Amino acid sequence: MKKEKNFPKYYLIASEIINQIRSGKVHPGMQILSENEIITKYNVSNTTARKALHEIELSGWGKRIKGKGTFARKKDVERSINRILSFTKNMHQAGLRPSARLLAAEELKEGYSAVINGRKYTLPGPVYRIHRLRFADNIPMLLEVRYISPHLCPGIIQKDLKGSLYDVYESTYQLELKEIQQQLSVVILNEDEKAYFNLDENVPALLIDGVTFCGNEIILEMERSIYRGDKYHFSITAVK
Amino acid sequence: MKKEKNFPKYYLIASEIINQIRSGKVHPGMQILSENEIITKYNVSNTTARKALHEIELSGWGKRIKGKGTFARKKDVERSINRILSFTKNMHQAGLRPSARLLAAEELKEGYSAVINGRKYTLPGPVYRIHRLRFADNIPMLLEVRYISPHLCPGIIQKDLKGSLYDVYESTYQLELKEIQQQLSVVILNEDEKAYFNLDENVPALLIDGVTFCGNEIILEMERSIYRGDKYHFSITAVK
Repeated sequence: MKKEKNFPKYYLIASEIINQIRSGKVHPGMQILSENEIITKYNVSNTTARKALHEIELSGWGKRIKGKGTFARKKDVERSINRILSFTKNMHQAGLRPSARLLAAEELKEGYSAVINGRKYTLPGPVYRIHRLRFADNIPMLLEVRYISPHLCPGIIQKDLKGSLYDVYESTYQLELKEIQQQLSVVILNEDEKAYFNLDENVPALLIDGVTFCGNEIILEMERSIYRGDKYHFSITAVK
Repeated sequence: MKKEKNFPKYYLIASEIINQIRSGKVHPGMQILSENEIITKYNVSNTTARKALHEIELSGWGKRIKGKGTFARKKDVERSINRILSFTKNMHQAGLRPSARLLAAEELKEGYSAVINGRKYTLPGPVYRIHRLRFADNIPMLLEVRYISPHLCPGIIQKDLKGSLYDVYESTYQLELKEIQQQLSVVILNEDEKAYFNLDENVPALLIDGVTFCGNEIILEMERSIYRGDKYHFSITAVK
């Protein structure tokens, strides 16, 4: 994709079609050109036409259905889980408009505990609890509960909670985020969760339990977030 | 959990019950002591009994079902995805006995390509393809296909393929693994996959597409692995 010239023909055809999907001219679910239509329109061999369709499928912008043709699809959003990254920033990277619906912002007397990767972490009460549903271009993507230390972030539930909490931690409370320990599990959405996401079918999802530190052992927040499996994939680099 | 003395009572009770599950004396699915039974057996208050049951649930070794009681469960296996880690080593960490069933080991003329985190990677043909089902204590956990460079690993399909391929790369071919780029997606098992795992229900799974480098741009192998969502959770640390 880095080469600027001498693209093979199949690649140029695939790029043109992908751009139509990317720009919204061809909507997700719409059928794109067939092998024969590509042969006629671009005056190419059937090998080139087939390679173009294969390229579109490999790129993630099309899905071939046997005996039916190739259909445009919206690529899922990539989220890196090596790095501390807000939903807001992640959506901007993906070219999508983030928004949030605040479901609850309250103070819990009893605190919050969770076992994450075999270790039990506790935010003793009272603790703030912020429950939000987060959207990309008005599509619900992520249902999250954040438990936040009131010692580190006094009064945060009265602040503007429509955007990145990481930004609020850093700019309003001058906290430096150090590390998030995360545990990923694969789950099926329950009825309540399906309702939030406006889904009827059994969609698999990724549950992330996390604990965020702003110092060596200082817990800033704990979270329990549900990412829709049909809208996301997660990228990660493993090293020795 | 690091304190050696002065454990609270609820914790000692929880530990005793967890050890019975861990050792196999209490099987997964079996009901463990109720709140009242704990009160009687250990001569403690109902607060202590409740805290013990809560501790067992938090530890992951028990699941409370409303109105029914608490039931022992086998903890799922933790897999770190920050680090290059073989299935074999991961199972040893978890105290489980790894084994593998070789489903195919062949040479493909056409090579293999996949888009991983938005970038297309290709192992040009011919390429080796090794398809395996991997077990922990005879339970199928992971269904994997590995595509391997025959230039770097000539003749690997004739070797012993029952254990860690990473070990074979390193010890037989003196290759140094540098990095794995991985893309994680949440999927529902299809009928073929369910058959391999002996499952009837719709179990969600984690699909990992990966590309492993042994030098800057030298692809050693590509993989497509399906981890059972009901048997695994994944740990990861995110940093700034």
